[in-house]
Amino acid sequence: MSLQNPVFIPGPTNIPEEIRKACDMPTIDHRSPTFARMFKPAVAGVRRVLNMGAGEVIILPSTGTGGWEAAITNTLSQGDTVLAARFGMFSHRWIDLCQRHGLAVQVIETPWGQGAPLGAIEAALRADTGHKIKAVLATHNETATGVRSDIAGIRRALDAAGHPAMLFVDGVSSIGSMPFDMAGWGVDIAVAGSQKGFMLPAGLAILGVSPKALGAMETAGLPRTFFDFRDMLKSYAAGGYPYTPAVGLIAGLAKSIEILEDEGLEAVYARHHRLAEATRRAIAAWGMRPCAASPDLYSDTVTAVLVPDGCNGTELVQLAATKYGVAFGVGLGEVAGKVFRIGHLGMLTDVMLLSGLATAEMCMADLGWTVKLGSGVAAAQEYLRNSTTVALAAAA
Amino acid sequence: MSLQNPVFIPGPTNIPEEIRKACDMPTIDHRSPTFARMFKPAVAGVRRVLNMGAGEVIILPSTGTGGWEAAITNTLSQGDTVLAARFGMFSHRWIDLCQRHGLAVQVIETPWGQGAPLGAIEAALRADTGHKIKAVLATHNETATGVRSDIAGIRRALDAAGHPAMLFVDGVSSIGSMPFDMAGWGVDIAVAGSQKGFMLPAGLAILGVSPKALGAMETAGLPRTFFDFRDMLKSYAAGGYPYTPAVGLIAGLAKSIEILEDEGLEAVYARHHRLAEATRRAIAAWGMRPCAASPDLYSDTVTAVLVPDGCNGTELVQLAATKYGVAFGVGLGEVAGKVFRIGHLGMLTDVMLLSGLATAEMCMADLGWTVKLGSGVAAAQEYLRNSTTVALAAAA
Amino acid sequence: MSLQNPVFIPGPTNIPEEIRKACDMPTIDHRSPTFARMFKPAVAGVRRVLNMGAGEVIILPSTGTGGWEAAITNTLSQGDTVLAARFGMFSHRWIDLCQRHGLAVQVIETPWGQGAPLGAIEAALRADTGHKIKAVLATHNETATGVRSDIAGIRRALDAAGHPAMLFVDGVSSIGSMPFDMAGWGVDIAVAGSQKGFMLPAGLAILGVSPKALGAMETAGLPRTFFDFRDMLKSYAAGGYPYTPAVGLIAGLAKSIEILEDEGLEAVYARHHRLAEATRRAIAAWGMRPCAASPDLYSDTVTAVLVPDGCNGTELVQLAATKYGVAFGVGLGEVAGKVFRIGHLGMLTDVMLLSGLATAEMCMADLGWTVKLGSGVAAAQEYLRNSTTVALAAAA
Amino acid sequence: MSLQNPVFIPGPTNIPEEIRKACDMPTIDHRSPTFARMFKPAVAGVRRVLNMGAGEVIILPSTGTGGWEAAITNTLSQGDTVLAARFGMFSHRWIDLCQRHGLAVQVIETPWGQGAPLGAIEAALRADTGHKIKAVLATHNETATGVRSDIAGIRRALDAAGHPAMLFVDGVSSIGSMPFDMAGWGVDIAVAGSQKGFMLPAGLAILGVSPKALGAMETAGLPRTFFDFRDMLKSYAAGGYPYTPAVGLIAGLAKSIEILEDEGLEAVYARHHRLAEATRRAIAAWGMRPCAASPDLYSDTVTAVLVPDGCNGTELVQLAATKYGVAFGVGLGEVAGKVFRIGHLGMLTDVMLLSGLATAEMCMADLGWTVKLGSGVAAAQEYLRNSTTVALAAAA
Repeated sequence: MSLQNPVFIPGPTNIPEEIRKACDMPTIDHRSPTFARMFKPAVAGVRRVLNMGAGEVIILPSTGTGGWEAAITNTLSQGDTVLAARFGMFSHRWIDLCQRHGLAVQVIETPWGQGAPLGAIEAALRADTGHKIKAVLATHNETATGVRSDIAGIRRALDAAGHPAMLFVDGVSSIGSMPFDMAGWGVDIAVAGSQKGFMLPAGLAILGVSPKALGAMETAGLPRTFFDFRDMLKSYAAGGYPYTPAVGLIAGLAKSIEILEDEGLEAVYARHHRLAEATRRAIAAWGMRPCAASPDLYSDTVTAVLVPDGCNGTELVQLAATKYGVAFGVGLGEVAGKVFRIGHLGMLTDVMLLSGLATAEMCMADLGWTVKLGSGVAAAQEYLRNSTTVALAAAA
Repeated sequence: MSLQNPVFIPGPTNIPEEIRKACDMPTIDHRSPTFARMFKPAVAGVRRVLNMGAGEVIILPSTGTGGWEAAITNTLSQGDTVLAARFGMFSHRWIDLCQRHGLAVQVIETPWGQGAPLGAIEAALRADTGHKIKAVLATHNETATGVRSDIAGIRRALDAAGHPAMLFVDGVSSIGSMPFDMAGWGVDIAVAGSQKGFMLPAGLAILGVSPKALGAMETAGLPRTFFDFRDMLKSYAAGGYPYTPAVGLIAGLAKSIEILEDEGLEAVYARHHRLAEATRRAIAAWGMRPCAASPDLYSDTVTAVLVPDGCNGTELVQLAATKYGVAFGVGLGEVAGKVFRIGHLGMLTDVMLLSGLATAEMCMADLGWTVKLGSGVAAAQEYLRNSTTVALAAAA
Repeated sequence: MSLQNPVFIPGPTNIPEEIRKACDMPTIDHRSPTFARMFKPAVAGVRRVLNMGAGEVIILPSTGTGGWEAAITNTLSQGDTVLAARFGMFSHRWIDLCQRHGLAVQVIETPWGQGAPLGAIEAALRADTGHKIKAVLATHNETATGVRSDIAGIRRALDAAGHPAMLFVDGVSSIGSMPFDMAGWGVDIAVAGSQKGFMLPAGLAILGVSPKALGAMETAGLPRTFFDFRDMLKSYAAGGYPYTPAVGLIAGLAKSIEILEDEGLEAVYARHHRLAEATRRAIAAWGMRPCAASPDLYSDTVTAVLVPDGCNGTELVQLAATKYGVAFGVGLGEVAGKVFRIGHLGMLTDVMLLSGLATAEMCMADLGWTVKLGSGVAAAQEYLRNSTTVALAAAA
Repeated sequence: MSLQNPVFIPGPTNIPEEIRKACDMPTIDHRSPTFARMFKPAVAGVRRVLNMGAGEVIILPSTGTGGWEAAITNTLSQGDTVLAARFGMFSHRWIDLCQRHGLAVQVIETPWGQGAPLGAIEAALRADTGHKIKAVLATHNETATGVRSDIAGIRRALDAAGHPAMLFVDGVSSIGSMPFDMAGWGVDIAVAGSQKGFMLPAGLAILGVSPKALGAMETAGLPRTFFDFRDMLKSYAAGGYPYTPAVGLIAGLAKSIEILEDEGLEAVYARHHRLAEATRRAIAAWGMRPCAASPDLYSDTVTAVLVPDGCNGTELVQLAATKYGVAFGVGLGEVAGKVFRIGHLGMLTDVMLLSGLATAEMCMADLGWTVKLGSGVAAAQEYLRNSTTVALAAAA
């Protein structure tokens, strides 16, 4: 594995120079106003990236998994019912987590490659006339299959059913890379991580919490301390933190948001879409297709590529690592072997993406798959060169 | 706050150059063998620092608080009884955490400045003939008061009482800086953090878990996922991690252990003792004394200095920060205002320590306290210059 | 210009992570033994990379230009004659430098794209029966045209002519990337820079000086102080430096040599050849050819690509920078506009190279040149995937 | 030598975090506009720090020694006469350099510890009725003795004598730390280095050149290429550089100036004066005195401390390094052994300075010198705590 090649895993992403430098800092006193001066802009920036209305931002020294756990332990009690669709490894894991915490999960089994089934969700909500369902869990971007679900549609389903359940969204691999509208979609808890759209190392779970979810916090019976929103909010109000924070990552988060907003969130989303589309053009040129079942489901942060019959995506990933020092993502769970995944999120450039596509092609040829070298690259080149609209920013 | 001055908070510590560089790394694929090659030496090194026998090391992307939570949720069930003494803010917080997770905590209230009361603990254990007590919790080094407790003594109490309770030890501010003997003391779970003796940024909870505690894991009823040892151990066995690890901190942990072992753990402990003793000499020269009630209780990582009547330790800490850009620790809880704290752990040098002592003196004079400038510095100088026995290591 | 894309200028090269970290160090006392402990392995390593026999290594806080100046001012006097061929911008500049220092330069004008003309050199030496020529200057790798000259051949010419002139070689863009045999070729001064094969930032001129050249030092009349070998050698012998050294770069140089020797110099040269050959395959697929007139002249560190009639290489370089954030080298002097240059030296990987080739193709298409997108990439892919023989090293 | 302790050598200085990060950058194309965008603010900032009027800034990848050489080779011819006083190692070295370049140096021998002798200079200029003297060389701050000379006084001497000689000033260890007024003092060339007031690593010579000196450039006969101002200025005008620049150091220089100007140059000078005064108070408390003969000569960047009879300053420096890992400066030349030097320039804090003073005291006691531990520290503390007028800047 060369430290000089970009990575194409669907997160953690390649870390921009400025963010590495922001994170790498000497020790400061986290009980001093110096810390508060770093923390406040990070919190305020997350609010803007999530497009939150009222509510609070919570930043935990943890990961996305911890964010999921925090979402439920702060709002629910043992035996509570939640509704969730399972259509990939990450939606599966959140369901599993809920079950291990004693929640009753009403699971809508959905084929991998599909997104959140709006009809089935609405039907389940309408059927729940007693409002036993306390929360609907939705995976905005299923990283295992490269599928983006329609969160606005789930909000419409809730509204159509007149159901008061909270809406919790796993946006770990979408937030900061694809449009996210917490206020517009009526999301009650949004969960992000530091290592995807925010381009930081792993180590922070970042949550937006609506007033409604904050209300639930008061009666939630699931035990929690490390993840307790109440301690967090009490300390934040005093410019502090309830225990030792991950100061460097918080400094990095502030810098990340500065970088995202300097480019403009809309431009960031457009850039992700453009690189994702270039990837899809390459895949089509290879005669393959995304695991995501239809274009409306295509993720702009990761593409799971269905490999031809008789081929094994995991072999490609292993060969890319050992022969070329390049990291792609393997297929997980139901799609293990059937796909390999190309992450195209974070501060990726055209040039970096092309190197990944070229590497995948070499691996295919090495493995004896039917592929014309240069074909996917050429398709991506043609698209990229005709779609560059943004002037390149100057280096530091 | 100047980024150039050393910090004298009782952790996070000043971070050595080499450790900062080890932590600051480009993204790698955490599912690749590259990660396993970093993780294994870190785990093996922790084992040596803890002086573990059999058992397992668990490394969580969390903090000491998360380590406490992991210790109980992986081994206990709602309603279980634990025994703990409260003699400072950190012993208090662990007790509070247990209560919030539904445990019955049998609390032995102990004056702040004292350590774990061996007699009372033994008495409580002897009285518990039904063995309701499942675990004894002990804070090895109470960071709030600068008190080191006698963990071997607690083991003797357990043995004397013939009690089968597990022994859980908070070694967050001792491990890596003061002798710790997990095997010899029969500790079942030891909790450390990255940001103290390991000299890393905050972000890792590091646990040693005995075979007995691993056995308890199977029947423990408290809900957990993020902190679940079972997922951890299953993934570790395959060279992986159950979710995205904090790769840079793990690389830094491996480097930290390399640095500690290059110096030699005994030499590291001797160095901490020497700097702590120099600090105590300075304090005596100021006419003050440690919060720790007697020399056998003195911590070698942090000294809480009792300030004279009519003086307020918090004012000193604030003045040091605003006027001199130097961070000390304030008094917490019962000793708020009554003490200020000097952290002297991690890769501190004589020279750095003297700068902290000199700063404290200036603040005392500024605040109108009775102090002779240079007096504490002189006492420390005299001790330090006569106790340097180790040749200085060459720089990188 | 994106800081995330690799550069394809013919130096400074992309800097490996470990070398950046070695260079970025806190201040040490350059008069202390700590400095000597860094300096000595750097000097010893340079000796091995140059394959020096007897003689001395000189390291100046300067650049290649300073190295050229140091070579002549330490060995020659005003009015002395030197023999040199001009066949590119860098051979031209060295000639110009000599003339500005009052030397009589006997110039053999040679077409750009050719290398050092062995026959003409031998003829000139044979004609110089009075041995007025004190030194022959040779540019091992002419960075402007991508031409490697035959230094062993120049030695043979000197020997055949029985001429006692010294042999000075500009190896700035070859040393550390292509075989260099100072002892075998009888080189009297070899000039290297930090920013090419050594993969460091610019800032060091690195010279190997033979015993014969050291002898000339005693009588050399050209004025010099900053570059004076005598001061350098006197200080080095005492473990010091005659003025303030560039300590970080010297630490980086020691690390660079460690990296080169860990890979093995032969493997390093083979890697450079392989990437150069892949580049040439791509060029051929584009229907173009190198500026270097014949395969024996092909440089393994930089390829100057002759662009088709009616095309302007400089436009490609500018477009690559502004549209794709990628840096190539423009044509200089006689070949301005007629070529663009692809640097493929330093710690470049297959994957990085492919991204550069893909970028060049997009630019060609953007500029309306006749090119099939993906064609050069495919040719390089085919070669690269069939020539990978070395197992990839593990990351740090 | 510990990398964690501050250094107290009179340069290179301790490097602020932000400057280290600015210098440590990935490779960019130095022929691109990206480089020009870094270089221009650095040049403009140097102009402000020097308080230049008309004229040009020249930045060379070299050191102060190279700056001296560039000053003379760009303006003078072999056999030209220059006037200089010798009163320390650095004034000596510049004289030596001139002699080695074939200049006739009219040397005014002056006791070490004195500054430039204004009367003798004026007399020499008045005596030179034929205006053979082409330049007066003056060492603004003699780093060997800690003496600041009166450059305005030299200008007055020149004016009083009606002498047209140019005035060249070595400001290597003063510029950026003590007031410098190139325009007001009529300085023709000012020489600075990166590693003192600019707080960077060594590697840049920084010169301000007056229109008069630029005029002399046209007729100067001393050979030069690497240092040639003509090549520099021609390239600068085109946004370029005549050879490969030290890009990272230039980025760092731009950051350095930003930091200096954020604090305010007057505040920077006041801070240096304050720390120097604290150092002198400590020295007085030790019963010693500066090498500088009188208060008007005291340097604010370095103090050479005269050690008591029978004591050897070099022993103190060696002991500080080996026993405490702290670097002071030894005495050089005539004052070798008779002094040790404390550098107090760059981004030093009160706290860092006190640690140096405390270390010196311990060494004195260790060596058996008569010293009261804490005495110098106390004197400095008393002065420092009563002279803090500036609010501390926030971190990061």
